[in-house]
Amino acid sequence: MALIVQKFGGTSVADAERIRKVARRLCAAREAGNDVVAVVSAMGDVTDELLALARQVSQSPPEREMDMLLATGEQVTIALLAMAIHSSGHEAISLTGPQAGILSDASHTKARIQEVRADRVREALAEGRIVIVAGFQAISDEGEITTLGRGGSDTTAVAIASGIEADVCEIYTDVDGVYTADPRVVPTARKIDVVSYEEMLEMAASGARVLQLRSVEFARNHGVVIHVRSSFNDEPGTVVEEAQPGMEQAIISGVTHDTSEAKITIRDLPDRPGVAAEVFGTLAEHNVNVDMIIQNVSEGGRSDISFTTPEEDLARARRAVAEVVEELGAREWSVDESIAKVSLVGAGMKTHPGVAAGMFRALADAGVNLDMISTSAIRISCVIDSADVEKAVRALHAHFGLDASAVTAEVSPGCGGGEE
Amino acid sequence: MALIVQKFGGTSVADAERIRKVARRLCAAREAGNDVVAVVSAMGDVTDELLALARQVSQSPPEREMDMLLATGEQVTIALLAMAIHSSGHEAISLTGPQAGILSDASHTKARIQEVRADRVREALAEGRIVIVAGFQAISDEGEITTLGRGGSDTTAVAIASGIEADVCEIYTDVDGVYTADPRVVPTARKIDVVSYEEMLEMAASGARVLQLRSVEFARNHGVVIHVRSSFNDEPGTVVEEAQPGMEQAIISGVTHDTSEAKITIRDLPDRPGVAAEVFGTLAEHNVNVDMIIQNVSEGGRSDISFTTPEEDLARARRAVAEVVEELGAREWSVDESIAKVSLVGAGMKTHPGVAAGMFRALADAGVNLDMISTSAIRISCVIDSADVEKAVRALHAHFGLDASAVTAEVSPGCGGGEE
Repeated sequence: MALIVQKFGGTSVADAERIRKVARRLCAAREAGNDVVAVVSAMGDVTDELLALARQVSQSPPEREMDMLLATGEQVTIALLAMAIHSSGHEAISLTGPQAGILSDASHTKARIQEVRADRVREALAEGRIVIVAGFQAISDEGEITTLGRGGSDTTAVAIASGIEADVCEIYTDVDGVYTADPRVVPTARKIDVVSYEEMLEMAASGARVLQLRSVEFARNHGVVIHVRSSFNDEPGTVVEEAQPGMEQAIISGVTHDTSEAKITIRDLPDRPGVAAEVFGTLAEHNVNVDMIIQNVSEGGRSDISFTTPEEDLARARRAVAEVVEELGAREWSVDESIAKVSLVGAGMKTHPGVAAGMFRALADAGVNLDMISTSAIRISCVIDSADVEKAVRALHAHFGLDASAVTAEVSPGCGGGEE
Repeated sequence: MALIVQKFGGTSVADAERIRKVARRLCAAREAGNDVVAVVSAMGDVTDELLALARQVSQSPPEREMDMLLATGEQVTIALLAMAIHSSGHEAISLTGPQAGILSDASHTKARIQEVRADRVREALAEGRIVIVAGFQAISDEGEITTLGRGGSDTTAVAIASGIEADVCEIYTDVDGVYTADPRVVPTARKIDVVSYEEMLEMAASGARVLQLRSVEFARNHGVVIHVRSSFNDEPGTVVEEAQPGMEQAIISGVTHDTSEAKITIRDLPDRPGVAAEVFGTLAEHNVNVDMIIQNVSEGGRSDISFTTPEEDLARARRAVAEVVEELGAREWSVDESIAKVSLVGAGMKTHPGVAAGMFRALADAGVNLDMISTSAIRISCVIDSADVEKAVRALHAHFGLDASAVTAEVSPGCGGGEE
């Protein structure tokens, strides 16, 4: 008997048959004695179809109207799912984001949740209903419908779980959980049973796609336990929670990679205070997200700056850099789109010196050249040529003993094996 | 310079091209110096598609969830229309029914508007925007999304027009206005330039499909002038307004017909007080709408009762009648689905005796047998065999001088002709 939030993405509710399947899962959880809240996305391609309609009537639709349009997608799903549950003999009620008390700021298409007033959800649960909440959408102070941007439904689920103090927020997806590396690249990758918020954040930020970064941040800030699991079976997946003090940390939790960034280099900038501030201030004004930054000072008082940025920000980044280069009198700038970032993430590396050296050695042995390096307390990332990315991931996965066959021997010698 | 509400139905906004066309019409009205509010329905077949989805997940979906589902249809339209107007260079804002302050009771799928709090619409108009309101939907006291049932968008338009004290509520449709008879039946039918609320109510109630009865009732109760006109041209249509005291009334405004009712006859009921109350009380309990009623008392203290009911209520009516026949010990009952109702409507008949006699004579001359008769101050309706309906409508249209070629000579001898 627990209080559970279950989140289902667009693929899980893509048609009537799958909606009925989700309904059965929710009913089963209810019949097992749990209080159940579902958070759902728009059906399959609905959001893309709505975007296509918008493009047919407008080149640059106002963001407020985009939110008005896109919010209908989740509203359709919640109504159908509530109907399907009713016809299975259980009581259900659908709630839009606004009805569920998801309050956000007024930043249309990328609103941030400010508060969850979950009274209505709690009341419906107290009446014995399965509560179905529309993901991705919220309401601003001014009563405007907003949407939360990419991965917004995950964030809704975590926010609701926080608002009602749920025991767990289950995120159903098309994979079994979080893996030590992308199984398409590393066939011997293992599912991770438990991972800390910090590690999950570093993995999400460095290329693991299974959970959206913002939802993990929200979960960490509010202490919500996330369980990432498959919508195709009932096996346990990966639990994301506070690091347990008594728990032995694996040195390395996983290897992630990301090929969706590009690198921009500006050469021969004047080396005086304020130049970096000028460069990245202009990028921020153009709404460009920057990931890794490297600055080298050359002889003669000039410097080079390189940084990486998501490819979706690249057009804006080009405009910003062209502006900055003009103002500061840099010599030249260039863009490299054929880069990849490969990262090692693991809370254990904090207390294990030599992880960075081991990483560079493993990559060198595999013949992979390093372009940029950045580190945090529990992550080391290297920018490499995108042609080398699979080779690099496999080399690191093997070197740090993450392969399914190797794990018992190399990382947890005292542990008798077994995944779950 | 006026304050105008324009309502567009599903056919007028069926695809992106038609939405752009509606946007152009709204922009033209704005450029002519008017303040403009649009009320729109769901695009083309969207509502039917949503209903089909609902049927795939549930045999008997809860009405609350049907409203949650169906309300998305209009929300899509308002967002797209606002986008189309923006891309034409005008300011627009879309508002859902709840945002526009359309408050209703809690009767899901057939809610009635209780109040319009039009502050937000007025503010947006004051900011110079074209305001786009979702028809058909409202919000209950409890914050639930409701829908207004068939013809709900017309009612929304009239309610908004009342709430902002608009000069006129223009209802755009696929016909040029209200006709003296259905032009598909009577090719010589004329468009009516002006008609009173009372006549329009009788015409709508007796089969004219161009305006929904509830919207005319609302308009009459709140003094909203309706202008029914074509979305395909800029010609004036039919104005529905308070009867002007100085205005000469045509004797007959039009001939309507309705083939969507069935007749039920219960024979040999005991002729004692309370029997009719029992019969129609039971029908009301089964939510059956009853139109015409006739009771005949036969010799021997038994009576027959016949009534007509919409075919959509027929299944419920059969159940109710079977129950009542059992209880009251009637001899037998029968259903006739091949009936039609033909009606004459005209405020002038109040002061012109002999209209009823003329109607019965014209029908007799055409060889049409009368089954039931009912009258109001400005309407006479006859139930006939449905096979005779076109013959009856044409005979009455000709007899009362409504044909386009005949109107000058027979009805308004002093008027020099001309439609507009």
